[in-house]
Amino acid sequence: MTIAQALDALAARLGDRLGRSPSDLALHGANEAHFPAMPPDAVAYPQDTAEVAAIVGICAAHGCPVVAWGAGTSLEGHALPVKGGVTVDFSRMNRLIEVRPEDMLAVVQPGLTREALNTDLRATGLFFPVDPGANASLGGMAATRASGTTAVRYGTMRDNVLALEVVLADGRVIRTGSAARKSSSGYDLTGLFVGSEGTLGLITELTLRLQGQPEAVASAVCGFAEMAAAVETVIATIQSGIPMARIEFLDRAATAAVNAYSQAGLPEQPHLLVEFHGSDAAVAEQSARFGEIAADLGGEDFRWATRPEERNALWKMRHNAYYACLALRPGARAIITDVCVPISALAAAVEETAADIAASSIEGPILGHVGDGNFHAILLVDPGSASDHAEAARLAGRMAERALRLGGTVTGEHGIGMGKIPYMPAEHGAAWEVMGSLKAALDPQGILNPGKVVPQ
Amino acid sequence: MTIAQALDALAARLGDRLGRSPSDLALHGANEAHFPAMPPDAVAYPQDTAEVAAIVGICAAHGCPVVAWGAGTSLEGHALPVKGGVTVDFSRMNRLIEVRPEDMLAVVQPGLTREALNTDLRATGLFFPVDPGANASLGGMAATRASGTTAVRYGTMRDNVLALEVVLADGRVIRTGSAARKSSSGYDLTGLFVGSEGTLGLITELTLRLQGQPEAVASAVCGFAEMAAAVETVIATIQSGIPMARIEFLDRAATAAVNAYSQAGLPEQPHLLVEFHGSDAAVAEQSARFGEIAADLGGEDFRWATRPEERNALWKMRHNAYYACLALRPGARAIITDVCVPISALAAAVEETAADIAASSIEGPILGHVGDGNFHAILLVDPGSASDHAEAARLAGRMAERALRLGGTVTGEHGIGMGKIPYMPAEHGAAWEVMGSLKAALDPQGILNPGKVVPQ
Ligand SMILES: Cc1cc2nc3c(=O)[nH]c(=O)nc-3n(C[C@H](O)[C@H](O)[C@H](O)COP(=O)(O)OP(=O)(O)OC[C@H]3O[C@@H](n4cnc5c(N)ncnc54)[C@H](O)[C@@H]3O)c2cc1C
Ligand SMILES: Cc1cc2nc3c(=O)[nH]c(=O)nc-3n(C[C@H](O)[C@H](O)[C@H](O)COP(=O)(O)OP(=O)(O)OC[C@H]3O[C@@H](n4cnc5c(N)ncnc54)[C@H](O)[C@@H]3O)c2cc1C
Repeated sequence: MTIAQALDALAARLGDRLGRSPSDLALHGANEAHFPAMPPDAVAYPQDTAEVAAIVGICAAHGCPVVAWGAGTSLEGHALPVKGGVTVDFSRMNRLIEVRPEDMLAVVQPGLTREALNTDLRATGLFFPVDPGANASLGGMAATRASGTTAVRYGTMRDNVLALEVVLADGRVIRTGSAARKSSSGYDLTGLFVGSEGTLGLITELTLRLQGQPEAVASAVCGFAEMAAAVETVIATIQSGIPMARIEFLDRAATAAVNAYSQAGLPEQPHLLVEFHGSDAAVAEQSARFGEIAADLGGEDFRWATRPEERNALWKMRHNAYYACLALRPGARAIITDVCVPISALAAAVEETAADIAASSIEGPILGHVGDGNFHAILLVDPGSASDHAEAARLAGRMAERALRLGGTVTGEHGIGMGKIPYMPAEHGAAWEVMGSLKAALDPQGILNPGKVVPQ
Repeated sequence: MTIAQALDALAARLGDRLGRSPSDLALHGANEAHFPAMPPDAVAYPQDTAEVAAIVGICAAHGCPVVAWGAGTSLEGHALPVKGGVTVDFSRMNRLIEVRPEDMLAVVQPGLTREALNTDLRATGLFFPVDPGANASLGGMAATRASGTTAVRYGTMRDNVLALEVVLADGRVIRTGSAARKSSSGYDLTGLFVGSEGTLGLITELTLRLQGQPEAVASAVCGFAEMAAAVETVIATIQSGIPMARIEFLDRAATAAVNAYSQAGLPEQPHLLVEFHGSDAAVAEQSARFGEIAADLGGEDFRWATRPEERNALWKMRHNAYYACLALRPGARAIITDVCVPISALAAAVEETAADIAASSIEGPILGHVGDGNFHAILLVDPGSASDHAEAARLAGRMAERALRLGGTVTGEHGIGMGKIPYMPAEHGAAWEVMGSLKAALDPQGILNPGKVVPQ
């Protein structure tokens, strides 16, 4: 067996940093979403780039699959080893290598989490803005092209990764990009690896853009009697050019969920959660302009949070909203949707989705990063119920088709993994084959996270 | 001859839209910089995507090189047909297809120029910010990953192209990206084609992000006794987080050049040219903060331009600065450098470069988009002088090495073309081979702009 030979060679190289205990395998065969567990044959814990290169080299020699693992928080079964092989867990490569305040950048190992990075940055006056709800690893975030509540202002991982070190499928180590803010020096390899879900190479170092802590910050929660009014407020706000730092939507069901889970104490109606960053004067001006738009469209019951503790509580509540939704139905798992549409189509996309879910047999709170046109329905299923699964799949399929019909994408931020692969032909047409050609060029044996992203 | 067969088939398909007159060939064999002329065998003028696909299909069948041509303003001989073949001139595909104000985007054909687009957008309250000095085509700008004076605020073509239609080397037509503001749906093909200099596919349609016209705009010119003080002002300004819309540098020689060419009437000393965009209050606040930083570091003789005519004159002067530098030495041609370094290294990069040029036998005004760490020395050579060429090549080589030593790139915005290819191994190492593998995957015959970007 080729995998068995690879494991022997890896064990010789890594010693007890090749995990084979049942608990280790089970941990790395699980996922945050609803996919069946699927353990790898072993888990490698490299300590540095050279070791990653050695692992991949050994696996390449034996045709053994290699699947990267960051924090395991991805939502589409991205890191499930569908053909077995070795999972490379980056948790021991979690150092902040360097902060360069004068260039507003940080160099990190891939296993560092976003929260740990921001804790380390506290004294510098800088922060890293990209914030998926989970405390994900920066390598995993790059690999899924993650974003979060602040993408409307600061962009996604596409915009915030300047340079990478990558181990290729044959064990070669390359560097892409540089610490310069822009370049026209050839193909954008950094951009190619960002979002490639571990199928083109393993990221072993990242150079990240940082942002200055704003002088002033203000957050607010604002309720609406109708979902349509909340969505219209988002569209009008984005079109007005107010540089929102955050603008998030919770529908009535999601609001009920965060009330129950985080004692948010919000009236049970749709809400927008917003934040403004800038100088004192700029924040005051932006808040006032947003307040006018929202009030015009029926926003009510404004609650401002200017103290850091209040703001932290607000965004912690938002970041836990996924768990809050799951808790609505004890024992449930979630089929998570992640469409993103042009802002002009947001109202249609959200409202048709809500109507669909209302008419269905399952629950599905809606929430999202609406300033980017991105929202999720958290479709709750009883793991043992085939009819729940079928109904969720039907709703998710209709959402995906709707997003494509409206000129959008089936995944705004979570990525493809196992869950979104069926939609790739409809979304990309012949461009999906082109992705396959790129994969074949960089990983001809197909050992890197097989079964993901490209046509099989 | 394979090229001859391709030309017969193309003539049958295109009729008089296949140009073969000596003047047509000469025009498309010339370049803005110092490279020897090199005419193609024919020039095709397609009218739509289907025709581009047919042209490429015919060329693929006969192994005939295909070189895209936008406005021909690139500065490194990008579009020179070094292996002959057919130049595809996009000037008849220059329509603004659609403006979607509510999504702040425009869909354009590749031959539309940036100035024509902005003229068409005037009534919408929107504009397209990327502004290389020349009136380049949007297809060419995407292909070179161009930027300009506003990249410090609005980004480069990387950031402003949302979606593309591309004809591949085998004539297949694909669409990349979408009108949604973000996506995690697979490899970033849009980003791969942006900056690929016509070597991976021909761009036949672009979806571009637009920006709202700012409520208020203010521009200023500010002189400094010493170059070092001007550069320190840039670094301090960027690090302070003031959201500059533009911050441009002209050294003493470049200032003299724009005085002579554009009657700028500036004191003969180094200058910064700046602009602020925002609400009235924001512009006032930003201007004041910048004014303080500049004054602290020795900025003097501030001149504000708030009236649109004054501002237009200022930026027209800046956009013509390249021609102004050329005019310093009648009959001269330019070897243009385009380094970009991390902002912390800007002072070292500019000052060492200036000292090098001062100690050399040729002139080389320095100017650039310093807010990004990007600057150019326009090295003036007598086209007939081998010693001038050798001296310019030596200086350019030292600049490139210095940029790499300081962690930057040899080309911040112009691209590789013929001029920067020799530096690719030093800049990219093994990553350059990876670019070659991608090229081989998408263009196995090597018919698209052969001799460019990748290892030969
Ligand atoms: C409560 C909750 C809220 C969430 N909210 C958001 C959100 O708002 N926005 C968002 O974008 N996502 C969100 N997510 C999803 C998830 O957090 C992101 O997908 C995140 O980027 C995954 O990072 P990870 O470190 O957990 O990666 P993993 O799950 O470990 O891996 C994800 C993928 O990346 C690959 N990978 C990991 N590390 C590397 C590496 N070093 N090199 C190459 N490939 C690698 C893996 O092989 C896999 O394909 C949420 C998840 C949860 C549980
Ligand atoms: C005075 C002056 C100032 C300048 N200032 C700047 C500046 O500030 N910033 C900057 O970035 N550049 C600047 N440039 C350089 C130039 O304007 C840019 O490189 C511009 O992007 C080139 O566009 P073009 O339409 O002229 O392309 P071309 O010169 O026609 O072509 C450039 C490259 O793109 C390819 N190409 C063209 N169209 C397509 C297409 N549709 N599909 C695929 N490939 C295509 C060509 O094959 C070629 O490789 C300046 C040039 C001049 C003369």
